[in-house]
Amino acid sequence: MATVGVILAGCGVYDGSEIHEAVLALLALDRAGVKVQCLAPDKAQMHVVNHQSGDVAEGESRQILVEAARIARGNVLPLGRVRAEDFDALVLPGGFGAAKNLCNFAIKGADCDVDEEVAALVRALVAAGKPIAAICIAPVLLARILGSDGRKPRLTIGSDSTTAAALIAMGAEHVPCPVDDCVVDTQLKLVTTPAYMLARSITEAARGIDKTIQTLIGML
Amino acid sequence: MATVGVILAGCGVYDGSEIHEAVLALLALDRAGVKVQCLAPDKAQMHVVNHQSGDVAEGESRQILVEAARIARGNVLPLGRVRAEDFDALVLPGGFGAAKNLCNFAIKGADCDVDEEVAALVRALVAAGKPIAAICIAPVLLARILGSDGRKPRLTIGSDSTTAAALIAMGAEHVPCPVDDCVVDTQLKLVTTPAYMLARSITEAARGIDKTIQTLIGML
Repeated sequence: MATVGVILAGCGVYDGSEIHEAVLALLALDRAGVKVQCLAPDKAQMHVVNHQSGDVAEGESRQILVEAARIARGNVLPLGRVRAEDFDALVLPGGFGAAKNLCNFAIKGADCDVDEEVAALVRALVAAGKPIAAICIAPVLLARILGSDGRKPRLTIGSDSTTAAALIAMGAEHVPCPVDDCVVDTQLKLVTTPAYMLARSITEAARGIDKTIQTLIGML
Repeated sequence: MATVGVILAGCGVYDGSEIHEAVLALLALDRAGVKVQCLAPDKAQMHVVNHQSGDVAEGESRQILVEAARIARGNVLPLGRVRAEDFDALVLPGGFGAAKNLCNFAIKGADCDVDEEVAALVRALVAAGKPIAAICIAPVLLARILGSDGRKPRLTIGSDSTTAAALIAMGAEHVPCPVDDCVVDTQLKLVTTPAYMLARSITEAARGIDKTIQTLIGML
């Protein structure tokens, strides 16, 4: 049975993984019959956001791994304790945590730094010809990691022109994509979908995520 | 368009709403074409549990409403600010938060006290002949609220004999139910499903929740 790693970035759209996207990806993967292992960096979040008010919760701190365990129902491994050989594919859900905790794109844009463990795992899977799916804002990670290596990944973040320009600045090709579809890089085996970059409802997000996961599974 | 209230109890299976159950319910409701409004009590959680270790996070406190906003992507109203007339139906996802924050069943069992705002909203909907769905452990709330009123709600929490005995002690009839099905009380218009009381996977939980929400919608 194939094993798919899902890299979480916390728990909540404004400071961690977008919860709907993560759960919809877990559902689609489980329905596809693969083994799923949630993963996360074992370090502090960039910050904590009060999701009711939208304000930063000053003085509060949370650990990415510990919060990710809420989505994973406890079963999440620190990235530092897994090997690329353990996985046949990776999935990167979105949410601001992907751009605040897995890298600092939310602050530095196209000049962002990527978490070293995330970058190492992505590079190892690409090198091994294993597929990776990235949802919503998470394709910025693929753009930065693979763009730095001189690759030109073919990706989408939907239609947001500012974010698309940043993807291109990092070395990627950006392909506009509607919410119910995904963009495939057949050479690098990447599948990306806009989800809540465009979705106006959970049903819309689910359509693109289902298609993305099915496409990923088809590449195994 | 019908409006369905979803009462959340925080964000995370061990101290709040079970995230998968809540998201699967939101997805099924949205797909059914109803308007959804997330709701939560505006008070502190019983405690905070580190979901990676399973231990209580001593000295930490979180607000139910603020954490529920993570699942709701910000759009959650305090129970004290809504009226029963605004809703055509209610959904109560599970997770320990239902038994720790919406009532204290986790501590006091069949003698539990229910949050007054939750009890008032449930009573008002039942009095108006509007349907209510409860998932996983959340049927204990219906048993306690309606049992106290001398009703005998027909409910399921799956097959756990201890919890079933507590339901009966609170005045309910307990009907064993497999994970992919739901139990209907046609008189009181209640629909209940075991979800993670029995589910071994998110796919299993989704089957019962989808059926539950479809049954609820059919009662509107």
